[in-house]
Amino acid sequence: MDYRFSDRMQNLKGNAIRMIFKLLAQPDMISFAGGMPAGQALPAAEIADIADELLHGKDALKILQYGGTEGYLPYLQSGLKYLARKGITDVTLDNVLAVSGGQQGIDLTCKAFINKGDVVLVEDPTYLAVLHILKTYEGVPVGVKSNDDGIDPDDLEAKIIRYHPKFVYLVPNFSNPTGKTVPLENRKRIAEITAKHGVMLVEDDPYGELRWEGEQLPSIKSMDRTGNVIYLTSFSKVISPGMRVGLAVADPAVIAKLTIGKQATDVHTATLNQAIVSEYLDRGLLDPSLARNIPLYKQKKDAMIAAIRRYFPASVRYTDPQGGLFIWVELPEGVSAKDLFLKAVERKVAYVCGSDFYADGSGENTLRLNFSNATLEQIDTGIARLGELLRQII
Amino acid sequence: MDYRFSDRMQNLKGNAIRMIFKLLAQPDMISFAGGMPAGQALPAAEIADIADELLHGKDALKILQYGGTEGYLPYLQSGLKYLARKGITDVTLDNVLAVSGGQQGIDLTCKAFINKGDVVLVEDPTYLAVLHILKTYEGVPVGVKSNDDGIDPDDLEAKIIRYHPKFVYLVPNFSNPTGKTVPLENRKRIAEITAKHGVMLVEDDPYGELRWEGEQLPSIKSMDRTGNVIYLTSFSKVISPGMRVGLAVADPAVIAKLTIGKQATDVHTATLNQAIVSEYLDRGLLDPSLARNIPLYKQKKDAMIAAIRRYFPASVRYTDPQGGLFIWVELPEGVSAKDLFLKAVERKVAYVCGSDFYADGSGENTLRLNFSNATLEQIDTGIARLGELLRQII
Repeated sequence: MDYRFSDRMQNLKGNAIRMIFKLLAQPDMISFAGGMPAGQALPAAEIADIADELLHGKDALKILQYGGTEGYLPYLQSGLKYLARKGITDVTLDNVLAVSGGQQGIDLTCKAFINKGDVVLVEDPTYLAVLHILKTYEGVPVGVKSNDDGIDPDDLEAKIIRYHPKFVYLVPNFSNPTGKTVPLENRKRIAEITAKHGVMLVEDDPYGELRWEGEQLPSIKSMDRTGNVIYLTSFSKVISPGMRVGLAVADPAVIAKLTIGKQATDVHTATLNQAIVSEYLDRGLLDPSLARNIPLYKQKKDAMIAAIRRYFPASVRYTDPQGGLFIWVELPEGVSAKDLFLKAVERKVAYVCGSDFYADGSGENTLRLNFSNATLEQIDTGIARLGELLRQII
Repeated sequence: MDYRFSDRMQNLKGNAIRMIFKLLAQPDMISFAGGMPAGQALPAAEIADIADELLHGKDALKILQYGGTEGYLPYLQSGLKYLARKGITDVTLDNVLAVSGGQQGIDLTCKAFINKGDVVLVEDPTYLAVLHILKTYEGVPVGVKSNDDGIDPDDLEAKIIRYHPKFVYLVPNFSNPTGKTVPLENRKRIAEITAKHGVMLVEDDPYGELRWEGEQLPSIKSMDRTGNVIYLTSFSKVISPGMRVGLAVADPAVIAKLTIGKQATDVHTATLNQAIVSEYLDRGLLDPSLARNIPLYKQKKDAMIAAIRRYFPASVRYTDPQGGLFIWVELPEGVSAKDLFLKAVERKVAYVCGSDFYADGSGENTLRLNFSNATLEQIDTGIARLGELLRQII
């Protein structure tokens, strides 16, 4: 059979992280790839209790039956309350859509906005799934410069003027992959710049709750006065990624389009999962869970930073994030993280090559380290192995 | 804000059924719209037991963590065993992909194959979501004639030659919306015709298990010798639609493309839901459930047919299906099911207008009745009300 696949599928390889998923499943592999929450942070017992009550409760048949595309009402109501934590208060049920993980929010946004050839501005480097999703819509990602404060607002405005993008995609809190956070002043400027030029901003915030240092900053969505911001959040990093439950927040006209797109894609997000997250939030389980887990993540981050200082050559640069799941590493110019990767995997330690996060595939000398899903011992051992390899070539 | 939505979103209205979902939620509405399984058929207690065991079991953390896009291994293994019921035996893990409901299988197929302007052949009438999904990919549905045996193989071949379609979409068992079933001889011919012309066939089979009369027929996929058939099934109609769990079955080269598309869309189908379905199948709960529920569905179907005979004018034609969830009604030419719909809803009874199922929006005089989610009393009352309205205009 000669398969005539669509144009969008030509040259579309799998997402780099997903492709190495099987490799990383080797039992003795130390993986700093992926972006998984710590296993011990997953609230299995609490979810078991909630599921049990829901499935024996008065709404059990409603939970197992088809539901509305917009989402399960109790979940949307819990979601509206949750958004107040992000400074997003001026919203009703018309502003929200239940999504099957935050990533589906990006996909639905592309479906609603992107024609073939449309430009989307992304921070360089950016979340690699956005680059992957954009390919499936034949959109064109263009990178915006990043400095220590995340995306550079001046370069952002210059590129908005130059490229007339359909939207800007940004992770302002503990960015994936860099771990950087956009400061308050820059958030205000980004809100202002995108509104002034009538450009949509997709503010993706899966990591915002995972802060161990500094103060929570208001979302850019909370500064949105023109309806140009789509705020995406997810309960993957704070409850369970396997549940696939997130929330999209936008102007009702945008939510209507995202909803039509979602109708076609998967009818609705699994109701049991929405109901479990709703109950989890309503029972006030999130804050105690964060209080338990954030110190755990900080401890892992501190351990990785300490190991980097100890084992890596001094010429290697790295971020020291105030929250989230990732440390970003810049090797000296000319050193290839890709070449290193093969040697690292031989030594049973893995990371994600930084070039996968660049719109133009540059960043050959960069890599992303995840610390949340490894033990302290694995962190020390794995970073030591990487350090040894680095000292052979630097 | 002046939203610059994508071309695909222009003129794309919500799926007709989903749009009236809220209307149908009125407590005193008798709804023959939708395609929901009967509430009493949803195995809440069994799912509760399974969820409880899974979430307290040794794989609880695996179930709550990120999983592979391909699907949760125990689910895929259960799925392979399940496919033997459909005569599909020559398959391995490389042939299957877990999807978030059967409809996602259609969406991913379009993503993998459809460029703007590509033709897809569908039975006239066909499942309306396919028409909706195709619009989001700017594909062009072309209708193939339907006779008492479902899609007409002669017209199918003529239109394959004329339109060079990317694929043919077909529900051979108890079609949505007509309830018709393609006989064995025609299945063989359809397998042969599509293979000969190198055209993909999407065989969508959500209703095949729900047969109360006649013999189970082998799937067209079981006759596939060239890898041109994509078989989609779903556990929505036999376990729970709210769980959003289905399975796509195809040649490994096709599964690879569907998987890449799914990576971008929602990373993976919720693992808890896959694990629940897997356990449900492995525990042998499906057959006893079917044994309980099929007589229930037949009873409802019989009640609706009896009521139609009793209350509808003799000039109204209707199908009497051997399984599934739907009866298809053809009013005399010139009678508009759309005009009737508004009056029907005023009288608190609802159905889906048939024209929503036609590629070209024709079929003004047709409508679809669902019998599975109404009580026997509602069936009698609702059909009586429709009959009264029909007798005023026919």
